[in-house]
Amino acid sequence: MLRTHNCGELRLSDAGKEVVLCGWVQRSRELGGMTFVELRDRYGITQLAFNVQTNAELCKQARELGREFVVSAEGVVAERSSKNTKIPTGDIELIVNKLDILNPSEIPPFTIEDDTDGGDELRMKYRYLDIRRKPVRKNLELRHKMAIETRKYLNDQDFIEVETPVLIKSTPEGARDFLVPSRINPGQFYALPQSPQTFKQLLMVGGIDRYFQIVKCFRDEDLRADRQPEFTQIDCEMSFVTRDDILNTFEGLAKHLFKTVKGVENISFDRITYADAMKYYGSDKPDLRFDMKFVELNDLVKSKGFQVFDDAEIVLGICANGCGEYTRKQLDELTEWVKRPQIGAKGLVYVKCNSDGSYKSSVDKFYSQESLAEWAKALNAKPGDILLVLAGDKNQTLKGMGELRLEMGSQLNLRDVNKFACAWVVDFPLLEYDKDAKRYFAMHHPFTSPVAEDIDKLESDPANVRANAYDMVINGVEIGGGSIRIFNSVLQNKMFKVLGFTEEEARSQFGFLLDAFKYGAPPHGGIAFGFDRFCSLFGGSESIRDYIAFPKNNAGRDVMIDSPSKVDIQQLKDLHLKLDL
Amino acid sequence: MLRTHNCGELRLSDAGKEVVLCGWVQRSRELGGMTFVELRDRYGITQLAFNVQTNAELCKQARELGREFVVSAEGVVAERSSKNTKIPTGDIELIVNKLDILNPSEIPPFTIEDDTDGGDELRMKYRYLDIRRKPVRKNLELRHKMAIETRKYLNDQDFIEVETPVLIKSTPEGARDFLVPSRINPGQFYALPQSPQTFKQLLMVGGIDRYFQIVKCFRDEDLRADRQPEFTQIDCEMSFVTRDDILNTFEGLAKHLFKTVKGVENISFDRITYADAMKYYGSDKPDLRFDMKFVELNDLVKSKGFQVFDDAEIVLGICANGCGEYTRKQLDELTEWVKRPQIGAKGLVYVKCNSDGSYKSSVDKFYSQESLAEWAKALNAKPGDILLVLAGDKNQTLKGMGELRLEMGSQLNLRDVNKFACAWVVDFPLLEYDKDAKRYFAMHHPFTSPVAEDIDKLESDPANVRANAYDMVINGVEIGGGSIRIFNSVLQNKMFKVLGFTEEEARSQFGFLLDAFKYGAPPHGGIAFGFDRFCSLFGGSESIRDYIAFPKNNAGRDVMIDSPSKVDIQQLKDLHLKLDL
Repeated sequence: MLRTHNCGELRLSDAGKEVVLCGWVQRSRELGGMTFVELRDRYGITQLAFNVQTNAELCKQARELGREFVVSAEGVVAERSSKNTKIPTGDIELIVNKLDILNPSEIPPFTIEDDTDGGDELRMKYRYLDIRRKPVRKNLELRHKMAIETRKYLNDQDFIEVETPVLIKSTPEGARDFLVPSRINPGQFYALPQSPQTFKQLLMVGGIDRYFQIVKCFRDEDLRADRQPEFTQIDCEMSFVTRDDILNTFEGLAKHLFKTVKGVENISFDRITYADAMKYYGSDKPDLRFDMKFVELNDLVKSKGFQVFDDAEIVLGICANGCGEYTRKQLDELTEWVKRPQIGAKGLVYVKCNSDGSYKSSVDKFYSQESLAEWAKALNAKPGDILLVLAGDKNQTLKGMGELRLEMGSQLNLRDVNKFACAWVVDFPLLEYDKDAKRYFAMHHPFTSPVAEDIDKLESDPANVRANAYDMVINGVEIGGGSIRIFNSVLQNKMFKVLGFTEEEARSQFGFLLDAFKYGAPPHGGIAFGFDRFCSLFGGSESIRDYIAFPKNNAGRDVMIDSPSKVDIQQLKDLHLKLDL
Repeated sequence: MLRTHNCGELRLSDAGKEVVLCGWVQRSRELGGMTFVELRDRYGITQLAFNVQTNAELCKQARELGREFVVSAEGVVAERSSKNTKIPTGDIELIVNKLDILNPSEIPPFTIEDDTDGGDELRMKYRYLDIRRKPVRKNLELRHKMAIETRKYLNDQDFIEVETPVLIKSTPEGARDFLVPSRINPGQFYALPQSPQTFKQLLMVGGIDRYFQIVKCFRDEDLRADRQPEFTQIDCEMSFVTRDDILNTFEGLAKHLFKTVKGVENISFDRITYADAMKYYGSDKPDLRFDMKFVELNDLVKSKGFQVFDDAEIVLGICANGCGEYTRKQLDELTEWVKRPQIGAKGLVYVKCNSDGSYKSSVDKFYSQESLAEWAKALNAKPGDILLVLAGDKNQTLKGMGELRLEMGSQLNLRDVNKFACAWVVDFPLLEYDKDAKRYFAMHHPFTSPVAEDIDKLESDPANVRANAYDMVINGVEIGGGSIRIFNSVLQNKMFKVLGFTEEEARSQFGFLLDAFKYGAPPHGGIAFGFDRFCSLFGGSESIRDYIAFPKNNAGRDVMIDSPSKVDIQQLKDLHLKLDL
């Protein structure tokens, strides 16, 4: 090694040692006859000291070092006269007696500091410099640790990691595939996997009863903020299990990660049905760090002469503790907020619960103090609280109230990134009806098993069939989801029929899976976690991009390497393709 | 879990326990009033016993089970009267009192046995059934263990695993890229990585001084036997290192794997230069499990009137111990063997070293006993050995003799799959001249650093510049290779010039890397291992396909899922492409 130690490990107990450090020049400063250079590497920062009286030439060299120069410094570890308690190496410095510039550097386009002056675009273009910054490096280290601990836990549970192919076959169901033209097979294409779903099921048929893989997946979607065309899953499948075996096993994984990566113990998981999640939180991924459940007020508010409520399919209230003193301005802002098109409410009704036991409401003229007291009771409100009420079409109001609940949670600082509320949402609907396509689509995917007691309704009442599916939700973020699978070709064929596949379509797309099911498929189920999202949750960030070494922007473009890009005409000829722009 | 135990874990000490097993019916047989069913899962086989006298109905059910039916069996563990010492569960059987058929099976297209009756093609088509066979499952388990232990070793050495992107940019240098059309960026393409080479170098620039990744890579090559369009590498890079730091670190990895996966200790690594490897073994990946070095005989054989040798650029001999009694027929076969086009020799000269000290040679009329004795001495031959001599053009003869040496090693059983001979081949040539393209190509890749003392020759004598590159060779197989990289943009630009890149070409393809080098790139180097090959070496197989869960055939086709395949015309329209067949 060109170094004997790294820049993060020397301590007072090393004083007197002759060492060599390598790293990047963070900054240098002159103080009297001394020049001090902060040398940085992945492990930390160590101060280099140069004394003009001892070695003028070396000191001159040191003074000429620019930011981000790569240097090697040889010297003796010495106790510092003015210690820096902010860094672990702050008790010592290196009295340098030899300095080599391994590589100079131009002035970087932004500062390599925890708080950089570089904007998002510049940092993405020079991502290799961004990665030198501690917050970004810490994110990559966190991700590495998450992967190591995930594998450790699953390996200890007898799971084996099996690599499934990346060049697979296009299936029109679901999101759009990325295609890869085959040169050797003219006119034919591979597709990149949206998930290894069918392969992991085939592994179950193959008797690998506990499979996992940390694996890249691909979706050619119209990109939205914080979506990546390539993303990473922790993909898992088990045989001879019931739903609860899977929930317990992967609760175990989450708890193991919380403990080993975050140092957080005593994590527990709630279980909540999809129906209840929608009813009480207006979301299939409720943030359970705070309560603030919805209460339906229909019976209390209707037929009192307030047309808006009388016409509404549903009237929902929440109670925001301690917001009874909200000002007119705050309430107006909240009203504007719910009227934004993303929320789509017509208006917001409030009831302030005054400290004297009276109520002040925006609908005072329709409702008596007694009526409002009934609302307050239904919502379990105390003096000093505020009730917020939305009304309208059921689905939209549930969704709007879900957003308002989150907003109030944020305003009340109830969404602490260092607090974790974990839950399983279970019993999802199996199917969703698409009005445009006039057919049912699988809410998860076509291999999800219905709940056993609902199988009879598959043809007669498809909308009310529950899936044996589950999502792991932490702090309002869907971290993972999965299901017990159909493992019987008769039921699988019935499912394809409900989804409007002709027999030929089912055969041509999933023939190999249907064939496999004929040869003794075991009962099985699984789950996949969004690894990028899991990392960002652990890191306390909302953006998955911060946890990806080389992310793409919202147009699916890697601005660092400038990709995608044009290719040689000959490359296209070799692939038997022409552009059609 | 639907089971309480797996089919591999019950022992005599479990006798009396009530258990539930799940698995596949391996076979059933009737013996007197008993029916015995062998139940198989990933962990082993356990015998189920059904007594017609105790429960006639259950026994009837058991008799009707077909091969590969998936069943659940509940019962009591009991000592077997006739024990089976071949399997770990052979002391016990399960006296079944409840049997459930979880899924029936059609008759599988081949038998699920260690030695199956299924041919290669059938097994690939039904790979999910092939995986149920123990040899295939063992291979996947070995691969998993190799990956786990690789990560353990590297993590312990402070390496962090960083995922690099799969959707990158096409670079014409090297093998052909797979392209991925971008829908959102019409007329533009991503490419799949042939390796994460540039990204790992950027990570070094980014200060991640120890990186690794077990990662899928892609090459659109004209497929040869045992090549896969997608393959897996253990990809590694380190900063602030010399060559020997890298060799030591990854010798350590190999030793760790030998110890933890194979239970083999005392592995040592030779170091041999490329020049010596070619001179003594005619190969840059010599099989060092046996010696049989080449000896150049030019001085001894020329000017004795044998035209073939006189005209030859080189005359090479090897000594095959104990083959002095080879028959005429064996020698004729060997002669035919070297004359095959793959070897391309004009003929084979032999000298038998008789037990009486005399010599019998195919060129007796040109060479005296004294001359032949000189050859024997040069080759250190003893009575009972045979000398084999090839002559001709230097490169072809070296290569041909390399093949002949391996063949003789095989004939002499010197290539034991349970013996491991490990070496580093170092000091490769930096460049190869391509006569057709009339230019130099990088023997490894354009980022490989020349050996320091040869840098001056880069423009004056490029053919004789040695690379600071190295291959790990085990048993004649190249398991990994890498180099110290160029980390300075001046030298990198010079290298591109030698390779015939215009400045524009270099900029457009590697501009981001050249830019990165301006901002303080550290000295760095790395290595990549062919993980599929590494696994097959450890498994004692010549075929990497056996170690890939879902391999493609030699036409790049996955015959199980029937891919690549045609896609909807609309998919192509969305991608702004037309077929050009």
